[in-house]
Amino acid sequence: MKATVIGLGLIGGSFALSLKQQGLCDEVTGIEHSEKNARKALELGLVERIVTLDEAIAESDLIVLATPVDTLPIMATKILNRINHKQIVMDMGSTKQELCEVTMMHPRRGRLVATHPMWGTENSGPEAAERNAFSGRTVVICERELSDEDALQTVERIYNCIGMPIRYMSAEEQDTHCAYVSHISHITSFALALTVLEKEREEEHIFDLAAGGFESTVRLAKSLPQTWAPIFLGNKYNILDVLREHIHQLQILRRMIERDDRDGLIEAMQRANKIRDILK
Amino acid sequence: MKATVIGLGLIGGSFALSLKQQGLCDEVTGIEHSEKNARKALELGLVERIVTLDEAIAESDLIVLATPVDTLPIMATKILNRINHKQIVMDMGSTKQELCEVTMMHPRRGRLVATHPMWGTENSGPEAAERNAFSGRTVVICERELSDEDALQTVERIYNCIGMPIRYMSAEEQDTHCAYVSHISHITSFALALTVLEKEREEEHIFDLAAGGFESTVRLAKSLPQTWAPIFLGNKYNILDVLREHIHQLQILRRMIERDDRDGLIEAMQRANKIRDILK
Repeated sequence: MKATVIGLGLIGGSFALSLKQQGLCDEVTGIEHSEKNARKALELGLVERIVTLDEAIAESDLIVLATPVDTLPIMATKILNRINHKQIVMDMGSTKQELCEVTMMHPRRGRLVATHPMWGTENSGPEAAERNAFSGRTVVICERELSDEDALQTVERIYNCIGMPIRYMSAEEQDTHCAYVSHISHITSFALALTVLEKEREEEHIFDLAAGGFESTVRLAKSLPQTWAPIFLGNKYNILDVLREHIHQLQILRRMIERDDRDGLIEAMQRANKIRDILK
Repeated sequence: MKATVIGLGLIGGSFALSLKQQGLCDEVTGIEHSEKNARKALELGLVERIVTLDEAIAESDLIVLATPVDTLPIMATKILNRINHKQIVMDMGSTKQELCEVTMMHPRRGRLVATHPMWGTENSGPEAAERNAFSGRTVVICERELSDEDALQTVERIYNCIGMPIRYMSAEEQDTHCAYVSHISHITSFALALTVLEKEREEEHIFDLAAGGFESTVRLAKSLPQTWAPIFLGNKYNILDVLREHIHQLQILRRMIERDDRDGLIEAMQRANKIRDILK
């Protein structure tokens, strides 16, 4: 099998490495619109060659979309327009509703497998790509019933080889889930960084940030804006919903502190402690 | 030197281990009001003996307070009332203004060294105590000018041996600093856990929380309510101030998402990215 990965950043670069590492592909090529990143990806051996979209469509069995989520619906449609009935397109985006809605009625919808491998770090670009990145993490496959059986099986086989448990759900369920377990954490981290940076201008005593737990809480604020803005906007209604709840919870805690409500605080924190069981 | 640590949980237990490990004390004894934790601390070898406060005052050169911050002012005062002019009291609390204000005029104020070693984890109790816990982390010493020279030097020597860089500041500066780098992260984590747990009741698809960055952001929500409620209330005005700013930043991001303000989001996230330089 020959594969082409479009977008050789954190996710695409790591996935290209996995495809090679597992011996799943004879050749993995890449498409990358930044020349600098294309050179870097070659240098790091993430892919064997940089190709054009025409070349990918002419020669690849599998085309993997790993670009920002707002580019996926149009890119998937254009590629579906041109591939044959044996080629497969898959994406790795963090939101799925827009992609699934736009491609829903496409006569070659069956050649598309919509996936979200749930792994990432706060780093970006080809240099951020990691070996064994996805192993052990869950991958979500959306609207499986709309993918052709052979396309689905090929993609499932790839994720099985990489060692990722698969969960199937609707695009709607996946986006709601990710608003809670991923997107909100990023927004909280960005806001926390802005809070401290706002203060830091007037305060010389912001130091040793690792010590108080701050570093792990704010880690995600290092993430790439160009990746995350489209995710936040693409999952807008779920995120607005979760953010409303999160701000509400912060306001409840704030009011308890204001009123010296020690018992209320302890009760709320004991409820929050239950997250320990869920994280196992 | 003989030392007694009062409160053999995460902080006190780890500090007792450090005192032993560095050969700083001939004997380290402990006071622990929970019988279960006292037994556990002995079992784990955190201290050699459990003693009473009377015994500690009769035989110890150094008494270390590692109990919840709201207990420190009264406990420090009672111990200062009874120790001689060679004995030393130090505390390890995360907030300092109340302690320093209450003890300010005490005729033996010089025997107290007010410190905050900036280390902790989300775990608690004697089992959470760690070897080499504090090494490399900053310790804050407050109102150094109110401590006797010999008491200050002894405590500085201890922290030097453990490998902690020392910073000196007023109690007010330390509490402001900690509101930003520690306390707010805890509140954010507790609120995030409550947000997700609130949703989880109606949502079966909350799974694989580690994958999306959620786990590191919510880690601190596992922390002990009995430790943190007194810290939040003891640093009330700083925390209300930081929380106001944090909620404000969240609302700004929320409004940008609502208005599809992609450029605004990217600009805000790019500002937040600067936290990378500060964390180094």
